[in-house]
Amino acid sequence: MNAREKKIIAYHEVGHAIVTSVLPEANPVQKVSIISRGMAGGFTLSLPLEDQYLESRKMLLAEMSTMLGGRAAEEVMFSDITSGASNDIERVTKLARRMVTRLGMSEKLGPMVYGQKEELVFLGREISEQRDYSELVAQTIDDEVHQLVDSAYNTAKEILLKYKDKLIEISEKLLEVETLSKEEFDALFPTPNEKNQGIPYLDAI
Amino acid sequence: MNAREKKIIAYHEVGHAIVTSVLPEANPVQKVSIISRGMAGGFTLSLPLEDQYLESRKMLLAEMSTMLGGRAAEEVMFSDITSGASNDIERVTKLARRMVTRLGMSEKLGPMVYGQKEELVFLGREISEQRDYSELVAQTIDDEVHQLVDSAYNTAKEILLKYKDKLIEISEKLLEVETLSKEEFDALFPTPNEKNQGIPYLDAI
Amino acid sequence: MNAREKKIIAYHEVGHAIVTSVLPEANPVQKVSIISRGMAGGFTLSLPLEDQYLESRKMLLAEMSTMLGGRAAEEVMFSDITSGASNDIERVTKLARRMVTRLGMSEKLGPMVYGQKEELVFLGREISEQRDYSELVAQTIDDEVHQLVDSAYNTAKEILLKYKDKLIEISEKLLEVETLSKEEFDALFPTPNEKNQGIPYLDAI
Amino acid sequence: MNAREKKIIAYHEVGHAIVTSVLPEANPVQKVSIISRGMAGGFTLSLPLEDQYLESRKMLLAEMSTMLGGRAAEEVMFSDITSGASNDIERVTKLARRMVTRLGMSEKLGPMVYGQKEELVFLGREISEQRDYSELVAQTIDDEVHQLVDSAYNTAKEILLKYKDKLIEISEKLLEVETLSKEEFDALFPTPNEKNQGIPYLDAI
Amino acid sequence: MNAREKKIIAYHEVGHAIVTSVLPEANPVQKVSIISRGMAGGFTLSLPLEDQYLESRKMLLAEMSTMLGGRAAEEVMFSDITSGASNDIERVTKLARRMVTRLGMSEKLGPMVYGQKEELVFLGREISEQRDYSELVAQTIDDEVHQLVDSAYNTAKEILLKYKDKLIEISEKLLEVETLSKEEFDALFPTPNEKNQGIPYLDAI
Amino acid sequence: MNAREKKIIAYHEVGHAIVTSVLPEANPVQKVSIISRGMAGGFTLSLPLEDQYLESRKMLLAEMSTMLGGRAAEEVMFSDITSGASNDIERVTKLARRMVTRLGMSEKLGPMVYGQKEELVFLGREISEQRDYSELVAQTIDDEVHQLVDSAYNTAKEILLKYKDKLIEISEKLLEVETLSKEEFDALFPTPNEKNQGIPYLDAI
Repeated sequence: MNAREKKIIAYHEVGHAIVTSVLPEANPVQKVSIISRGMAGGFTLSLPLEDQYLESRKMLLAEMSTMLGGRAAEEVMFSDITSGASNDIERVTKLARRMVTRLGMSEKLGPMVYGQKEELVFLGREISEQRDYSELVAQTIDDEVHQLVDSAYNTAKEILLKYKDKLIEISEKLLEVETLSKEEFDALFPTPNEKNQGIPYLDAI
Repeated sequence: MNAREKKIIAYHEVGHAIVTSVLPEANPVQKVSIISRGMAGGFTLSLPLEDQYLESRKMLLAEMSTMLGGRAAEEVMFSDITSGASNDIERVTKLARRMVTRLGMSEKLGPMVYGQKEELVFLGREISEQRDYSELVAQTIDDEVHQLVDSAYNTAKEILLKYKDKLIEISEKLLEVETLSKEEFDALFPTPNEKNQGIPYLDAI
Repeated sequence: MNAREKKIIAYHEVGHAIVTSVLPEANPVQKVSIISRGMAGGFTLSLPLEDQYLESRKMLLAEMSTMLGGRAAEEVMFSDITSGASNDIERVTKLARRMVTRLGMSEKLGPMVYGQKEELVFLGREISEQRDYSELVAQTIDDEVHQLVDSAYNTAKEILLKYKDKLIEISEKLLEVETLSKEEFDALFPTPNEKNQGIPYLDAI
Repeated sequence: MNAREKKIIAYHEVGHAIVTSVLPEANPVQKVSIISRGMAGGFTLSLPLEDQYLESRKMLLAEMSTMLGGRAAEEVMFSDITSGASNDIERVTKLARRMVTRLGMSEKLGPMVYGQKEELVFLGREISEQRDYSELVAQTIDDEVHQLVDSAYNTAKEILLKYKDKLIEISEKLLEVETLSKEEFDALFPTPNEKNQGIPYLDAI
Repeated sequence: MNAREKKIIAYHEVGHAIVTSVLPEANPVQKVSIISRGMAGGFTLSLPLEDQYLESRKMLLAEMSTMLGGRAAEEVMFSDITSGASNDIERVTKLARRMVTRLGMSEKLGPMVYGQKEELVFLGREISEQRDYSELVAQTIDDEVHQLVDSAYNTAKEILLKYKDKLIEISEKLLEVETLSKEEFDALFPTPNEKNQGIPYLDAI
Repeated sequence: MNAREKKIIAYHEVGHAIVTSVLPEANPVQKVSIISRGMAGGFTLSLPLEDQYLESRKMLLAEMSTMLGGRAAEEVMFSDITSGASNDIERVTKLARRMVTRLGMSEKLGPMVYGQKEELVFLGREISEQRDYSELVAQTIDDEVHQLVDSAYNTAKEILLKYKDKLIEISEKLLEVETLSKEEFDALFPTPNEKNQGIPYLDAI
C-alpha cells in the first residue's frame, strides 16, 4: 500500500466509525484500524450492546448507512472514489435485497417473499434462488432496493458533512497511530445527542 | 433474546391467536407461548375441530390472515417491523401462490393450472416448477397473489385494531406467564359473536 | 372425510355425471361413487361407446366440460369452491394446451405446432418441451387456452343450472347409497333430447 | 378404428393425393391407402420423378400444401377437425421454420441463418438449437413461419374446393377398395392442365 | 444431381467467382468447378495474394459479398432460390455477427465486445456464448448484423446485374467443361478496372 | 505478417503508448515493440510508478483510454479498422462492466453491486455470474458501460489527433527499429505538461 492509499483508507474507516456512532439504531465502535487484515486495507469493528435475535427495519437501515460510511467519506473528501468500497457495496446490496424480498420490509411489495430458494442436487450441493415473478415485479424490486441503498447512502453523507471537521481530525490521527481503541475513539468523538435518543418504539405503548 | 425482543414476540404471538379466534373459517387456539422452540421465538397452536380433506377458498383466506396476524400486531403496536415474521410471510406467499396457480381460485385466471411440475432426474431427484406461460400471465399471477395477501393482511389489521385493548392485555399477561393454555386464552378472549356465524354455505341449499 | 366434505364431493361427482350425460359428443356415465379411491374422494366413470382412434375438436371440448363439471357444481350450489377440483383443472389445462399447441385446433394460431419436444439424455431419460416462439405467440397461446377453458366451464355451468333440480336430487340420493350404477343413474337421469342429436358431421356429405 | 374414423381417414388421405397431383412443383402420387401402418390410420405415397439434390422455395411451398391437404380435406368436408393431422402439422411447422431460419427463404429476414446449432456433450449426445436473436426477431420469425403455413393451407383448401366432386368420388371409392395404386388413382384423377405447366424458371434464360 | 440442378449450381458458382473478381478487397479466383465435393454440388476457390494476419472491415465486407454471390446469381437469373446457398448464408451470418459482437466493427455499438465466451466443464468440454446484455442491445445487434448482410448481398447483386452477360457466358461454358482453372477463368473474365484500385488506405498517409 | 500489416501494427502500438504518456492517471511507457509475441502482432508495456492496492475511478478511465489507443490510432490514420484491436476491446468491455456492476462507479446505478457470482459445482468447477435484476436495469447497465467506453475512446482519439505528427514520426521510427526502449520513447515523446498535473485529489484537503 502506498502513502496515498493509506490516506484514503484512513478516511474510509473513520467514515464507517462516525456513521455508526451517530445513528441511534447502530452499534457503537469497538476499534478502528488501518493495519491490513486479509484482503482489506483496514477495518472498523462495531458490536451491539446486547444479544440480538430480531432485526428491525430501522436497525437494518442504520446498518446499511454504516456499511456505506466508507465510500461516503471518499466522496465527501476527495474528487474520486476507489475500489476500496467494493466489499461494502456488495454486502449492502445483499442486505437491501433481503429486506425487500425475504423480510417483507418494502411497503410497496407487501408482507411477501419474492423468489424461491431451491436446492439443486447434482454431484455437489448447491442452493440457488429461482426467480418466480414477472418482469414488472423484478423492476419494482430493483426500484425498492435502489431506493433503500440511496437513502442509506444519503444519510451517511449528511452525517459526514455535518461532522467533516471530526472526520479530518480523527483520520489524520489514525494515520499517525494506525489503530484507535474504543476509549481513544470515544475521546475523539464523544457520543452526540442524536445517538442518545434510544430506540423509542417499544416504550410507545 | 433480550427484554425488548421478548416483548415484541409476545405481541406477535397474541396477534396470531386473536385473528384465528375471530374469523369463522379459522381454527380455534390450543396454546400460545413465548418459550423459544427451534428457530422461532414463540408459537401459537391452532387446530381444526374435525379432520379435513378439502380446503375451501374461504378457509384458506382465513388461514392467511392468521399467518399474518403476528406481523400485523407489530405494525399496529410499534413504529417498526422485524424479521420475526419472515417464516410467516414465506408460508403466506406459498399458500396464495398455490391458490392462484394450482387450485384455480382466482376468478381472473380461471379454473386452470399455471406452470408445469417437472421431475428432473440427475443423480439425485428433484422436482422443479417450469414456467410455461407468457410474461403477461406472470404479471396477472403476481397481481392476484399480491391482492390475496394484501386482503388477508388488511383483515388481520382490522381485527387487531378492533381488539387492540385485548391485544395489549393478553400480551402483557403472556409476558408474565410465558405460556397460555386453551382454557386460559379462552378466559381472556371469550369467543366473539362473529366467530359463531359458522360456515354457512353447506346449509344454503 | 367429514360430513360436510362428503356432501361437497357428492355434488362434485354428480356435476361430472350430468354434464357428460347431456353433451352429444361426450361419453355416457358408467358409474358414480363417493367411496374414496386413492387421492380422490369419489369418482365418475364414463366410457366411449366404441373404440376411438381419432379425437375431434368437438369431442375434446365436451371432454373439457365434463372434467369441469365437478368444480361447476360446487360454484353453482355453494358460495365457495374447494381444492377437490385440483386434479380436474390440471387435466383440463393440459388438454386445452395440447389442442392449441400440438393439434392445431386454434383458428388464430393455425394448423401448426408450437414448442419443440426435446429428449434430454442425462443418466435418466427425460422429455422436456422447449419453447421456440416469441413472447407475443406465448401470449396468444395463453389467451386461446384460457378461452377454451372458460368456454368449456361456462357450458358446464349452463347445463348444471338448467338441471339444478336433478343435480340436487341425484346428489342427495348418492349421499345415501354412496354408489350409483349406470342403470341406477340412467333411471334418475334419462338421456335428454339434446344428447340424441348425435355427431352430425359425418352424415353431412 | 370405427367406421366413422375410417371415413374421415379416407377423405384425409385423398386430400393429400389431390393437392400433390395439382401443384406443378409437387411430386406425383404413387399409392393411397387407408390400411393402418404403425401410428398412422392411412398413408399417401408420392415420389419425385428424378433424384433431387436441391430444394427450391417453390418446391418446398408445394410440399407444405401437400402435407396440409389432409387437414384441409377434413375442414372442407366436415364441420370438425381431428387429431389425425397432428403428424402433418408438426412436419409442416418444422419445414416452414427451416425455410425461414436455416435456408434464408424469407425476404423480410434476408439471406441469413437464425439460431445456433449447438452440441451439448453430457453422457449422451444431443443437438440443441440455441436462440441467439432478440425478441423482435423471434416475433418476425413467428410471423413469417405462420404466413408460410397459412398460405400453403389456403392453397390446399382452394384446390380441394375446386375438385370437391373428385374428392368425394375418390374417397368413397377408397373406402370400398382400401388401397389405390398409381394407375387406379390416375384413372380417377387425370393430371389437370395446371400440373403440366412444369417448372418454368430454368427455361427462362 | 439432375440436369436442372447442374445448371443452377453452375450459375451459383460463377456468381461467387465474378463477385470476388470485381471487389478490390476480395481474393482472386483460383478455380471454379461443378464437380461435387462432399456435401457441396460445386466449389469456387479463391486465395489471398499474400499471408494475412489482420482482417480489416473492408476485407470482411468483400468476403461477405463473395459468399453471397451464389445466392445472388440464383435470384438474378431464375425466379426461385434454392437450398444450395444454405452453407453460404450460415457462414455469412457468423461473420457478420463476429464483426459486430467480437471485433467492434459496428459504429453504433462501439469498440466493445458483446456476450461472454464461457467454458462449461461437464464430462466433455464445451464452449458456449453467454448473453450478458439487455433485450434492447440484442435488438441493435440484430439490426446491425442484418444491415451488414443486406449491404453485402446488394453489392453482390449489383455486380452480377452489371456483368449479367458474362455470368451467362461463363456459366454455360462451365456446364460444358465442368471445371475452369485460374487461367481459363481469367481469359473469360479479364480483371476489370474497379478491381485494380487496390486497397488505398495504407498509402494515404 | 505482410508489410501492410506491419505498418498498421506499428501505428496501433504507438497509439497505446502516446495515450498512456499523456493522461495524468495512466502509467508511463516501458517499452514499445512490433515483434510478434504469441497471438499479438506487437505490444506496449506500461507500469505504475509504485505498488497499487486501490483502483480509483479516474485511474480506470485512463486505463480504458490507453487500451483503446490502438484502435483509435487505426481510425485516425487509415480509412479502415482491423481485427488487431479485438483483444483490447474485450478487456475494455470487461473493465467498464466491472466499474458499473461490481465497483459501484456509475452515479446512475449507485453504490451497489449488480448480478450474483455463483459457483456451480458439477464434476469440474465453474464460476458463473447470475443476472438477478430486471430488464430495465440491464438496459441501464448497458447504457452506462457503453458511455464509459465511448468516453474513453473519444479521449484517446482527441489525444492522438492533437499529437498526430508525433504518432506518424514515432510509428515510422518503430517500423525501422522494431522496438523502442523507455529511454528511446521518452526522447521521441517528452512528457507533456498535461501529464505532470499529477493526481490532485489527495492534496485537496
